[in-house]
Amino acid sequence: MALIDQLIEALRVLPGVGPKSAQRMAYHVLERERVGGKRLAEVLAQAVRDIRHCARCRDFTETEICAICASASRDAHLLCAVESPADRLAIEQATGYRGLYFILQGKLSPLDGIGPRELGLDQLDNRMGEGEIQELIIATNPTVEGEATAHYLAQLARRHNVRPSRLAHGVPLGGELEYVDRGTLSHAFGTRSEML
Amino acid sequence: MALIDQLIEALRVLPGVGPKSAQRMAYHVLERERVGGKRLAEVLAQAVRDIRHCARCRDFTETEICAICASASRDAHLLCAVESPADRLAIEQATGYRGLYFILQGKLSPLDGIGPRELGLDQLDNRMGEGEIQELIIATNPTVEGEATAHYLAQLARRHNVRPSRLAHGVPLGGELEYVDRGTLSHAFGTRSEML
Repeated sequence: MALIDQLIEALRVLPGVGPKSAQRMAYHVLERERVGGKRLAEVLAQAVRDIRHCARCRDFTETEICAICASASRDAHLLCAVESPADRLAIEQATGYRGLYFILQGKLSPLDGIGPRELGLDQLDNRMGEGEIQELIIATNPTVEGEATAHYLAQLARRHNVRPSRLAHGVPLGGELEYVDRGTLSHAFGTRSEML
Repeated sequence: MALIDQLIEALRVLPGVGPKSAQRMAYHVLERERVGGKRLAEVLAQAVRDIRHCARCRDFTETEICAICASASRDAHLLCAVESPADRLAIEQATGYRGLYFILQGKLSPLDGIGPRELGLDQLDNRMGEGEIQELIIATNPTVEGEATAHYLAQLARRHNVRPSRLAHGVPLGGELEYVDRGTLSHAFGTRSEML
């Protein structure tokens, strides 16, 4: 196979990239971005070789312990459990949270063979047993599996006298009631709070 | 910068990839496609290093002469001029064309400093001078610049007694008149042909 066809095929490993966009990407890089393409090839080779999971939080990192876990300026009393590195990043970018994280790399899903072991919950168990953590902020997604995972995590936390908490659910800021889905609206109505 | 952040940034060299999709691509490859990611890194490095322009047709190839130009089974009397390798591929896939190609790698655009030289038209001139080509099929895009390029190419062809031809323009097959743009409809109306 010609090298360009091999490149087009190899690009399809990227999510959301079909034959047409793989072709567009290949031509674009060859026509206008050879330097950037070379750099991408190098960084990608290094990343798939060196990036593994942080021994503390399971986030992606090329070091034994990731930068956040290794930082002395983070509050070690707070631990926030998220499903994925992308969720961790979203929280880190949107909030002023200064505690630590634990990345489940998934959610409980017995039908897919994903149980507590696969989510590293033995590791989380040990960690809460160390006694430093006071609050476990559970930031799994508000899906059926995310909720099941959240309940499991809350039980685990209580066993270690760690206070479990959950992100608030309700109408998004700037959202219009008319366009909010029924489940969210019903939940928000049911958990309304008194105005002071 | 952490290696993962370097990877996310490097991925943005790809067309249509913003910060969010670069992030999604990086996580996807690291979570589920390490083998494919390694392969992509290798092929991409090789491609940006080795792929250049075919000495005959200016298409992308890692060899001196591309497979189509080197093929003995193609009709050397027919030459089809296209703007880009993607156009060449589209014609190759959609039609039964068995002649050769010439890839302009652009279109005449004096304001952007793209003249006959940049499109390799001296090369095309020499080639038509060799006397083997009988028809130049001009398949530039039906844009203002594409049309200007087509006229230039047609003149060049006539100078060498090569017959210039142009792809038909009109209502696309399966298209509905109601939704065809005015320019196309007006052109199709004006160039209607008698039904035999």
